[in-house]
Amino acid sequence: MNVGFRVDNCSIERTLAIVGEKWTFLVLREAFNGVRRFADMQTMTGAPRQVLSARLARLVDEGLLRKVPYREPGQRQRDEYRLTDKGRDLYPLLVSLMHWGDRYMADPEGPPVVLTHRDCGAPIEQHLRCADGHEVGGPREITPRAGSGARLKSA
Amino acid sequence: MNVGFRVDNCSIERTLAIVGEKWTFLVLREAFNGVRRFADMQTMTGAPRQVLSARLARLVDEGLLRKVPYREPGQRQRDEYRLTDKGRDLYPLLVSLMHWGDRYMADPEGPPVVLTHRDCGAPIEQHLRCADGHEVGGPREITPRAGSGARLKSA
Repeated sequence: MNVGFRVDNCSIERTLAIVGEKWTFLVLREAFNGVRRFADMQTMTGAPRQVLSARLARLVDEGLLRKVPYREPGQRQRDEYRLTDKGRDLYPLLVSLMHWGDRYMADPEGPPVVLTHRDCGAPIEQHLRCADGHEVGGPREITPRAGSGARLKSA
Repeated sequence: MNVGFRVDNCSIERTLAIVGEKWTFLVLREAFNGVRRFADMQTMTGAPRQVLSARLARLVDEGLLRKVPYREPGQRQRDEYRLTDKGRDLYPLLVSLMHWGDRYMADPEGPPVVLTHRDCGAPIEQHLRCADGHEVGGPREITPRAGSGARLKSA
């Protein structure tokens, strides 16, 4: 975000260069659901074969997914796709998308899926908190400051 | 996310239908930075004029931005664009994008911007927590369950 310096090294923009596209997010959604195989990805996302192939290759190139070979009896060897740590770290992003959609885009009956805490069953919420432990309600309680990589505007 | 039921009412997919595109996220980034005017949006995002115009119109149609007329001395009346509550609720999504990018895409010098708590100055972090107050580390501690709008697979 910009507060009087340049945006050409913006982290949002660079992230979108990798994941800023519907099919890519849907591939990641399925990866988080444990879907690993091309045919299953195709069924679940509805992505055209070539699009899916291109998106998976990109995510592997960028280190968000890794390919692991497998072989079904009587079949040729194929690859399955597994999330790397870098890919898994996109989880908060998927949760943000899902929660906003649940709030504003769900059918009258309610959201299709609820994320719950494995240990106690209570629904998951996403919070902002500062490193000193204060709860932060939203953008009005946040001040953007120049980071160590900030580039000042020349104008 | 999918756990044995259909994905055709997926909240992630529906959200991406509105915001799943690079320029739209960059427009939202600038809106959160307090940028309200077309020319400033254009400068900050680098979006082609027609693209920016289309994205702003879409965000207004979907109720994420609202138009408010203004008039500079000697100029015709124009509209500026302000976040609605619905738009402002996308903030966690922008924070997720930014933090992931800071971690994996930043230059060696570090991230360009740091979000800090207005009151104490400490950097902002995003956390997952369940409604019973337990901290949740990540996807492995989360179980997706059918929500009230879940559609069972017919097959």
